[in-house]
Amino acid sequence: MFTTTEWPRFTDCDGLGHVSNTILPVWFEEARTPLFKICNPSLKLETWNLILKRVEYELFHQIWHNQKVTIETELEQIGTTSMVVTQRAYQNDHLVASGRTVLIFFDYNTQKPSPIPGTVRGQLEPHIAEPTP
Amino acid sequence: MFTTTEWPRFTDCDGLGHVSNTILPVWFEEARTPLFKICNPSLKLETWNLILKRVEYELFHQIWHNQKVTIETELEQIGTTSMVVTQRAYQNDHLVASGRTVLIFFDYNTQKPSPIPGTVRGQLEPHIAEPTP
Amino acid sequence: MFTTTEWPRFTDCDGLGHVSNTILPVWFEEARTPLFKICNPSLKLETWNLILKRVEYELFHQIWHNQKVTIETELEQIGTTSMVVTQRAYQNDHLVASGRTVLIFFDYNTQKPSPIPGTVRGQLEPHIAEPTP
Amino acid sequence: MFTTTEWPRFTDCDGLGHVSNTILPVWFEEARTPLFKICNPSLKLETWNLILKRVEYELFHQIWHNQKVTIETELEQIGTTSMVVTQRAYQNDHLVASGRTVLIFFDYNTQKPSPIPGTVRGQLEPHIAEPTP
Repeated sequence: MFTTTEWPRFTDCDGLGHVSNTILPVWFEEARTPLFKICNPSLKLETWNLILKRVEYELFHQIWHNQKVTIETELEQIGTTSMVVTQRAYQNDHLVASGRTVLIFFDYNTQKPSPIPGTVRGQLEPHIAEPTP
Repeated sequence: MFTTTEWPRFTDCDGLGHVSNTILPVWFEEARTPLFKICNPSLKLETWNLILKRVEYELFHQIWHNQKVTIETELEQIGTTSMVVTQRAYQNDHLVASGRTVLIFFDYNTQKPSPIPGTVRGQLEPHIAEPTP
Repeated sequence: MFTTTEWPRFTDCDGLGHVSNTILPVWFEEARTPLFKICNPSLKLETWNLILKRVEYELFHQIWHNQKVTIETELEQIGTTSMVVTQRAYQNDHLVASGRTVLIFFDYNTQKPSPIPGTVRGQLEPHIAEPTP
Repeated sequence: MFTTTEWPRFTDCDGLGHVSNTILPVWFEEARTPLFKICNPSLKLETWNLILKRVEYELFHQIWHNQKVTIETELEQIGTTSMVVTQRAYQNDHLVASGRTVLIFFDYNTQKPSPIPGTVRGQLEPHIAEPTP
């Protein structure tokens, strides 16, 4: 499990005075950086090899600016060309949001999904979450 | 069904040269404006009466800047305090993304969900989608 | 003079309930699209030939969401490798903001400024503003 | 002088693969937080007492994602109802951008500028930059 932090920006709030729901996918994307590094160690755009297929997120509490947000990121499963990431965001010890994202290994030259290489798979597997009982 | 258009901004693209997936919730939020007007006719923030509970979206094609996006918005169901909105985004006649959002009627003074008023419900119901066969 | 319109997004507001000042550079960038088209007719990123050097903007009124913004864009001057753009944003017949941007013709391959081609210059010149008396 | 750090988000990049110029005002706003705390110690939106009047920024280098940005913030001058903030952003030991912002003390109830209170002024003054020789 990867644990990272986000600091809400003033502009992340909307007119209702809380953090806009639309920022959750941005934060969750940032929190997937450790996974991006496994897939594309240089993080260079020219060698980027993932594309996003599906996003789900749910909000449990309003989120406020100027208070740190902690995000936990782990894998739910790894397929042939895809992986499912689950994430949880906490602020002030409350679970404020959860997310689930499907990412596809993608060859931007051929514009097609590509199988996850064995070495990458080997580094991803330790981050698969234990099933909750 | 409501049909609205979005024009991708240059800043809606990310470093991969396509529109960032994280913009979909922003566009879908804009495209829900006709529903917001039914719930809160003045659209004023002081009388805002909705809060977002859950978002799902899926991407079918890369989306490019400088080409119009058309969004269709309809209701899937209306509950006691919540409604489920389904949306589809098209660019160049392709379905590029779909979304599903759960919104809750919310009293920002008491910080609690509140029942959908009958008159609002009456105006929302005609926008419930026909079940697809 | 080019006149374009922007529709403030819900997420363009910040926690103070007005449009965030940080959106002005985004809108002004969108409103420079007619100039971008003169410089790079396809608007394709691969042939993009401008880089931003300097931005100034001033705010005269708070700007509200859900009310159209009209932006006027014209040129102040054209140099050997650069041009200066001036812009004004109106909402509800009020001048709400003005902006001034310095753009440089830029060769992303050599990473160096490049002279404005004569044919581009010829198409830009008619958009230089008359000096105000 | 206040020194803070920003971590470019993936979505802060635009289609050209570098950080969008439009993010600079967002980062500079975040970097002014220590000044906001002097003016409004709780940082609560209900007691916010500043409004932005004018922004200038200049870019000296392209800015890349996934590399820390350090921002220096200091005051240029303090007037009766306003202050001028100067800022510099560094990435990889290069000065990548500078900024200058005029902020006005503002009473959101009366919608009018208000004089900077003496105690606030006393705490701001030590952050006025030495004139560069």
